[in-house]
Amino acid sequence: MNNFDVCLTPDLLHLHRLENSIVVVTDIFRATSCMVTGLAHGVESITPVATVEECKNLQDRGYIAAAERNAQKVEGFDLDNSPFSFMNEKLIGAKIAMTTTNGTLSIAKAKGSAVKVLVGAFLNLGALADHLRKEPYDVLVLCSGWKGRPNLEDTLFAGALAESLKNEYTLQEDSALMAQRLYNQGKGNLLSFVANSSHVRRLQRLGIQKDIAYSLQTDLYDVVPVLRGSSLVQMH
Amino acid sequence: MNNFDVCLTPDLLHLHRLENSIVVVTDIFRATSCMVTGLAHGVESITPVATVEECKNLQDRGYIAAAERNAQKVEGFDLDNSPFSFMNEKLIGAKIAMTTTNGTLSIAKAKGSAVKVLVGAFLNLGALADHLRKEPYDVLVLCSGWKGRPNLEDTLFAGALAESLKNEYTLQEDSALMAQRLYNQGKGNLLSFVANSSHVRRLQRLGIQKDIAYSLQTDLYDVVPVLRGSSLVQMH
Repeated sequence: MNNFDVCLTPDLLHLHRLENSIVVVTDIFRATSCMVTGLAHGVESITPVATVEECKNLQDRGYIAAAERNAQKVEGFDLDNSPFSFMNEKLIGAKIAMTTTNGTLSIAKAKGSAVKVLVGAFLNLGALADHLRKEPYDVLVLCSGWKGRPNLEDTLFAGALAESLKNEYTLQEDSALMAQRLYNQGKGNLLSFVANSSHVRRLQRLGIQKDIAYSLQTDLYDVVPVLRGSSLVQMH
Repeated sequence: MNNFDVCLTPDLLHLHRLENSIVVVTDIFRATSCMVTGLAHGVESITPVATVEECKNLQDRGYIAAAERNAQKVEGFDLDNSPFSFMNEKLIGAKIAMTTTNGTLSIAKAKGSAVKVLVGAFLNLGALADHLRKEPYDVLVLCSGWKGRPNLEDTLFAGALAESLKNEYTLQEDSALMAQRLYNQGKGNLLSFVANSSHVRRLQRLGIQKDIAYSLQTDLYDVVPVLRGSSLVQMH
């Protein structure tokens, strides 16, 4: 069986070899929840970039641009980092450029050497698991964390995917085991399980509780975003 | 209240400011369990060093030398990395030099900027918690992990200390919350909870199950090892 591993933050990615791995990037609050939502609602592609400057450059070239830093929209951009902003009918067929504090940075770090880069969230957990059951590679879930530190919600997603794939993959690394056990502890009520986490406190101060509740819903969309070149598109 | 935080591996220590923190270094299997055991059994001091070469230099200067790499004793040294080797009557009053794959490296990384460096294990959990209840600083538990990766047993110890100090310190960082929850999930039977962890599998292949069971015992010793200069001594 192939191996299922978890990297709890991009600052630990140097410890992982990616040559034989599919990397699943997650940033539950809120980048990858936005990406899944956007592609499910008809966005053509989402180009994740690491810096605000690159995002601005793409905006100047006609992309709709979403830029978030420290959980707030950067001035001069079209979209914030709320998944509800990615459901707009005006975005059907659109090309979006996107930069966030953590999520787009992890995608930038993962691309280079991995077999393939996918994007995961609770919203597309089942579709992602179904896809990965057919793949002949190792899987590494890359949690985006918060400015280099591990966070609870991304770890829980990694654990949910581990639990979904435990019969098809070998789970032997401690980070994967810890994520799986935390998920099994919290799965009955994810919303209350993350209630005291640092990111939820940060977002609640900004009044975006509905983004939190939305992003913890499982299997809303049958979408698997995959990075092709520099853009995320829906896998067909 | 002061803050209680957890760093899951030395490879994430750059994300923490240590200027106002007491750092508690842990490496349950087995460096810090050895250190606590040795000082409890009358060893005068233990000098942790990062490299085998430094350990050899101290051996040449009359120290009793313990060197472990990849869970096995390095040839030419006096002691291996089993806590039972640190109970020997011949070590009463001895000065020991020690290097291990993970634990002594984290001590080396922590020293410089922290207020104080202490050594923790399940074996001295209660004594350590009693001491920290009286301290006016933040606490950071530095888990040694395995070659840069987080591991289960060190995370569980961090969680046990978090649980012991939850009324005296603020627990707000996600790494601390995750450790605390994992500990609360596993505390009924730590031995079975760590049974599938990567390090336990590694050690079991080497036939040292008794070190594992021993190191998971709580409150065997009323000892708080503290780094003074370059050596660990018992705090009085």
